[in-house]
Amino acid sequence: MSPKITTELLKQLRQVMKNPKYVQEPVQAYIVPSGDAHQSEYIAPCDCRRAFISGFDGSAGTAIVTEQHAAMWTDGRYFLQAAHQMDNNWTLMKMGLKDTPTQEDWLVSVLPEGSKVGVDPFIIPADQWKRMSKVLRSAGHDLVPVKENLIDTIWTDCPQRPCKPLITLDLSYTGVSWRDKIVALRSKMAERKVLWFVVTALDEVAWLFNLRGSDVEYNPVFFAYAVIGMNTIRLFIDGERMMDPAVREHLQLNSTLEPEFKIQVMPYGSILSELQAVAAGLSPKEKVWLSDKASYALTEAIPKAYRYLTPYTPICIAKAVKNASETEGMRRAHIKDAVALCELFNWLEKEVVPKGTVTEIIAADKAEEFRSQQKDFVELSFATISSTGPNGAIIHYKPVPETNRTLSVNEIYLLDSGAQYKDGTTDVTRTMHFGTPSAYEKECFTYVLKGHIAVSAAIFPNGTKGHLLDSFARSALWDCGLDYLHGTGHGVGSFLNVHEGPCGISYKTFADEPLEAGMIVSDEPGYYEDGSFGIRIENVVLVIPAETKYNFKNRGSLTFEPLTLVPIQTKMIDVNLLTQKECNWVNDYHQKCREVIGAELERQGRHEALRWLIRETEPLIRVQ
Amino acid sequence: MSPKITTELLKQLRQVMKNPKYVQEPVQAYIVPSGDAHQSEYIAPCDCRRAFISGFDGSAGTAIVTEQHAAMWTDGRYFLQAAHQMDNNWTLMKMGLKDTPTQEDWLVSVLPEGSKVGVDPFIIPADQWKRMSKVLRSAGHDLVPVKENLIDTIWTDCPQRPCKPLITLDLSYTGVSWRDKIVALRSKMAERKVLWFVVTALDEVAWLFNLRGSDVEYNPVFFAYAVIGMNTIRLFIDGERMMDPAVREHLQLNSTLEPEFKIQVMPYGSILSELQAVAAGLSPKEKVWLSDKASYALTEAIPKAYRYLTPYTPICIAKAVKNASETEGMRRAHIKDAVALCELFNWLEKEVVPKGTVTEIIAADKAEEFRSQQKDFVELSFATISSTGPNGAIIHYKPVPETNRTLSVNEIYLLDSGAQYKDGTTDVTRTMHFGTPSAYEKECFTYVLKGHIAVSAAIFPNGTKGHLLDSFARSALWDCGLDYLHGTGHGVGSFLNVHEGPCGISYKTFADEPLEAGMIVSDEPGYYEDGSFGIRIENVVLVIPAETKYNFKNRGSLTFEPLTLVPIQTKMIDVNLLTQKECNWVNDYHQKCREVIGAELERQGRHEALRWLIRETEPLIRVQ
Repeated sequence: MSPKITTELLKQLRQVMKNPKYVQEPVQAYIVPSGDAHQSEYIAPCDCRRAFISGFDGSAGTAIVTEQHAAMWTDGRYFLQAAHQMDNNWTLMKMGLKDTPTQEDWLVSVLPEGSKVGVDPFIIPADQWKRMSKVLRSAGHDLVPVKENLIDTIWTDCPQRPCKPLITLDLSYTGVSWRDKIVALRSKMAERKVLWFVVTALDEVAWLFNLRGSDVEYNPVFFAYAVIGMNTIRLFIDGERMMDPAVREHLQLNSTLEPEFKIQVMPYGSILSELQAVAAGLSPKEKVWLSDKASYALTEAIPKAYRYLTPYTPICIAKAVKNASETEGMRRAHIKDAVALCELFNWLEKEVVPKGTVTEIIAADKAEEFRSQQKDFVELSFATISSTGPNGAIIHYKPVPETNRTLSVNEIYLLDSGAQYKDGTTDVTRTMHFGTPSAYEKECFTYVLKGHIAVSAAIFPNGTKGHLLDSFARSALWDCGLDYLHGTGHGVGSFLNVHEGPCGISYKTFADEPLEAGMIVSDEPGYYEDGSFGIRIENVVLVIPAETKYNFKNRGSLTFEPLTLVPIQTKMIDVNLLTQKECNWVNDYHQKCREVIGAELERQGRHEALRWLIRETEPLIRVQ
Repeated sequence: MSPKITTELLKQLRQVMKNPKYVQEPVQAYIVPSGDAHQSEYIAPCDCRRAFISGFDGSAGTAIVTEQHAAMWTDGRYFLQAAHQMDNNWTLMKMGLKDTPTQEDWLVSVLPEGSKVGVDPFIIPADQWKRMSKVLRSAGHDLVPVKENLIDTIWTDCPQRPCKPLITLDLSYTGVSWRDKIVALRSKMAERKVLWFVVTALDEVAWLFNLRGSDVEYNPVFFAYAVIGMNTIRLFIDGERMMDPAVREHLQLNSTLEPEFKIQVMPYGSILSELQAVAAGLSPKEKVWLSDKASYALTEAIPKAYRYLTPYTPICIAKAVKNASETEGMRRAHIKDAVALCELFNWLEKEVVPKGTVTEIIAADKAEEFRSQQKDFVELSFATISSTGPNGAIIHYKPVPETNRTLSVNEIYLLDSGAQYKDGTTDVTRTMHFGTPSAYEKECFTYVLKGHIAVSAAIFPNGTKGHLLDSFARSALWDCGLDYLHGTGHGVGSFLNVHEGPCGISYKTFADEPLEAGMIVSDEPGYYEDGSFGIRIENVVLVIPAETKYNFKNRGSLTFEPLTLVPIQTKMIDVNLLTQKECNWVNDYHQKCREVIGAELERQGRHEALRWLIRETEPLIRVQ
């Protein structure tokens, strides 16, 4: 991996930073954030502007270029990678280290008095603009929006913005029509006394209209905005895809509908001018609802007095609570996913043990192959983490030829993978040993398992936030002085983003929304020993009502039901470290895997994988 | 309890709200907050202005008086009491109910255009001023500071501000001299590049100078401020108490000291003008450090560019980590406290069971009597919660003649009490039954006990915040659909405030500081059944290093050691609901009570109480 040579590019960028064709006044610094205009986790190639200008293509990082300097802020996961990928023009700013300045402080320290700092107002979230602008202003500088993206002006071979065909989802998948979702949204708007709602997150647009796309890798979304009024619906989307008869039929674009359900389709690029027109027509006390993570450009289009900002939109919250059709879809998706993994693990055992020819990449590809054989498979839901031995300790590892390691009977293998099916999204991690694990490996695995069970079997009152469950996952590890440095769970979409808000299980947040029956999250504690191995046990679980002996203040209780039904390798368990209750949990879980996945393997005629499943789900016996 | 008649008082207040003698311009509304100028939890009689103007004397509430209205905001604990204590001039604003307006919104709804809202700038914390002022300004009104407190102008028989003698604490109690505390503080100031530190919280002044007072009930503090510079120390304090030779000797007021340790004693009332003088002398980049909870008056005295505000001051954080002398003092105090409680419970058994003549108030008084027999007893550390039967379900109950109930063999008795000794502060809750508890009462008690043990025995990494342990205390209750609606623990001072920051164990906060060895908190889960009974088991526990099998990232682990050593009534425990580990915890705890408290009872010749202790600490036996 050799660094990208950026001398010429930086020269060009510094020229356009002064070019009156693009900037009203010269800017002395230009900020290139990571994201796209929708604050997406996964971005399209045309939005990888920071990677283009710097060479560094990790998932998180912000570049700032001044007349003299070029600096890159990124976090601990990427120090090594950024150092490898960037040339000497760049200074690496290691976030999280004590002496690393913030972007604002650094700007103040290097800029000449009264400088202008430019940024694309569509890429920077409004809250971040506010913070940055305040610090710069107090030091005598100005943060200014630069309408034309300056990277795009010098990126001659910039890929086109993707504009792939859409998938329509009927009621059997979504449970609720887009019309009914609009009705529900409008009732939330009426409750909060707002007249307009601006949909800026791509998964929220997709969910609202029961459409999916493939403009971005892993997330089945498409580039679009929507503006919902009490009597109007505007969808901002480009391309021929809106000519597709199935899409037109789905959105009833050719029908004579009641006017309040008539969708006006407009060009993607016209969102700003349309929003400005909406704002111009507002009377006092009329409000427009936006996420507080929306871009500065769209937020600014609405004068402050008319803005209604919330951290979670009503769509984000509604989307998180899955209805019966979505839940059933998620169940089906997880059954198919489990079939694929039983096939994979059976295949690995046959290949790894005698031959030793399977690499991390081959295993990841094989997993994808088995998944793709399943009905309604669309794509993977994230880049497969296929890691063996010391690579397993790198939490966000993705095998590449330079690091690719061969699976063996001497090392632990960790596979964190998932897929998008038309009926649901999966995300599962299993940790396996194909030889004989050491007592220490088993001990660590068992603590992680105890944590996994503690969350999965937890009973808690309605209204509890997920972050209050995080310590349950760590308690067994903590007892022995161990821990893991990531959260325990994230929300999972229904044939949508594998990471979604507003709920999760993590010590890092306090602002998550309470868990509700119908929400779906992951449960994935782990343990990582640098240079040796990684362990993680991850199921996707559904929040369900719990039966309890008493019912304090009539609040009702909740618990989790695992949707993931893939055996947890009993060879890795030190059964003497489990309580009888934990042992029963494992046996009940395996019994369910055997019944549900066994039946599906049988139906699909996958007899060898079925035999593997039966063997792997033999009950544990605890010696008292 | 009949309401206070406030018609005449309100008329007088409304007159002074327009009187140019007190206000520059007439104010159309006047806010009367609960607190004093130091944001104290317990306030002196002269600071009970809100109670004076309204009659409502609960611990939390804000009164606002306009030309036409008088309104009182308080929370659920006090709805009934406020309704009883206030006359028809007052509207009760029930905080926490959906339709209750905020103070700002209410003001906006009732005030004529362009109104002035007055408040004493010494009583309102700066952060609250900021929030309120913003809302009022955006509605065209102004929040204005009124220098003279308007309540004081009409409160003709207002008690004097207390000015009681001081207690000096030598090194055997404090472990660190006030000089060394100043040195440590200055080094923290240098680290943050601030030149001045303003001490506004009363317990912080007391801690810093190793002095105690009795100006306020329960908290051994005195009215004072301090301003610490890199070479100067100014102590703002009134009264003859500074003539006390012991105090002068302690503070070395008569000695020739290095100038940087010379304390300048100034009048309490001169803090504002002195701070303004400090501010006037500041050069650019010179900063003054204040708590963000300091009053608006003091915060405003420092121009914004010179202010350095933090939620927790370096004194607050240093004070929370007890040194060896303080820890030893706390141990001694808890031993004496346990002796008093063994005496009390032994006495109660003898009185309640055959005679039935003991009321809640008599029991509380008896507890105080036994405590006051112990060495270095100063006063109680809070109002004793002595409650039986249904009164136990009122979490902040304090027995008064109207509610006073007689202890009996048929009801659960809950006693939450504590004291200030010169060597430490105690806070302990025990729940007892003097007859035969029902199976349900035992069941609930045992869940609470399991929660208490789960926290007390928890092992967790260095750097963990207390709020991450809160769910451990609830897990056993949650499993059965039960819960309690308060936090699990608070920081405890060392012969200081029984409630202190910056650490605690509660789901309600996210901003607590990480637990460190030497910190002291309470562990007090409970269960309350409205109209029937209350259960709480509270120990004060010390954070200590834990020995663990492994040591992830060399972070080290922590756990708790109970300082409270009072038997937990085994009669109330359903031993079959305990795990063997929990059962061992109880037996080990009781063994320690027997050894440590037994020896002290023996030494004090309290043989009957010793026999009671021996009986109450018999080991539990769990039938497998």
